Amino acid sequence: MRTMTLRLVACIMGSCIGAFIPLAAGSVDDDASPIFGIRLSAGYREWQLISVAHEAGRLNDIRAILGNDIAVKAYREGTRPFPDGAIIARLAWEYVSSAENDAVFGQAQSFVPGSPTNVQFSVKDTKKFAVTGGWGYGQFENGKPNRSEDLMKTCAPCHAAVSSTNDFVFTRYAP
Amino acid sequence: MRTMTLRLVACIMGSCIGAFIPLAAGSVDDDASPIFGIRLSAGYREWQLISVAHEAGRLNDIRAILGNDIAVKAYREGTRPFPDGAIIARLAWEYVSSAENDAVFGQAQSFVPGSPTNVQFSVKDTKKFAVTGGWGYGQFENGKPNRSEDLMKTCAPCHAAVSSTNDFVFTRYAP
Repeated sequence: MRTMTLRLVACIMGSCIGAFIPLAAGSVDDDASPIFGIRLSAGYREWQLISVAHEAGRLNDIRAILGNDIAVKAYREGTRPFPDGAIIARLAWEYVSSAENDAVFGQAQSFVPGSPTNVQFSVKDTKKFAVTGGWGYGQFENGKPNRSEDLMKTCAPCHAAVSSTNDFVFTRYAP
Repeated sequence: MRTMTLRLVACIMGSCIGAFIPLAAGSVDDDASPIFGIRLSAGYREWQLISVAHEAGRLNDIRAILGNDIAVKAYREGTRPFPDGAIIARLAWEYVSSAENDAVFGQAQSFVPGSPTNVQFSVKDTKKFAVTGGWGYGQFENGKPNRSEDLMKTCAPCHAAVSSTNDFVFTRYAP
């Protein structure tokens, strides 16, 4: 993991040449994320809950973090690093006041999901994504991948800044 | 539903005699909620996600709303009223800042679950809970039911104030 950190620091410093070469150079998969080639995971909306969060600031969203069976099992058993095949889905919606709920409670207190913003996937594959700590990333809006390579280049450096004791994953399990 | 509303208004006015008679008068089920006799649903933490929310104010929690298969199917298909057997679980945790995440993002923006506060269940059974709009309620802390009858008496009147078009349920489905 120290290697990953050094490589990512190098990237942030602007000197990473070829670190983000597309996985299948020359071919374009319109249904997959750039660089990592991640596709929308079928049935992710039926996955079990890992946790929830509110990101204020520019994002200003409320979110749920779901996991496939491999990811959820690893979370519940405290397995780190996550095994290959683990997939974490982060769903986010606009963070909005609920006038309906507030009217019942008699005060402004209730914040709920508005429109969906995007869904992000973190996919563990230590061989395929060796250069980014074993994780590949993808972001989807309305079921379609965001095709910005610049956006995708921000994923791994940000995750690399998370404590390595959690395998470069932000989310902790909510019991 | 009009009958329920009138009965509940009467309760709020302090004149509901016998409306909240325990289901099995004389017997006490220490594992069940008072009045409604709701037990903790086995495996609820594995249920699918309905939505998320943040309740500010006195509660100041962040929450996930999960549903059993009957409830989730009804949500996805827009079935109202909910069919008998539907169970909605509301999990809540203290709403806390994540110093770890904020350090990565470079600003205070990330709010995540702290310690669990309680889990509430809404159970649909039109016969058993006819007097409270077909819904029975229970609140659990550390896996044990809150045994306060006064607390349980607040559930139905509060839910009765929600729009009846959503069958007295606060939560809307987050796609």
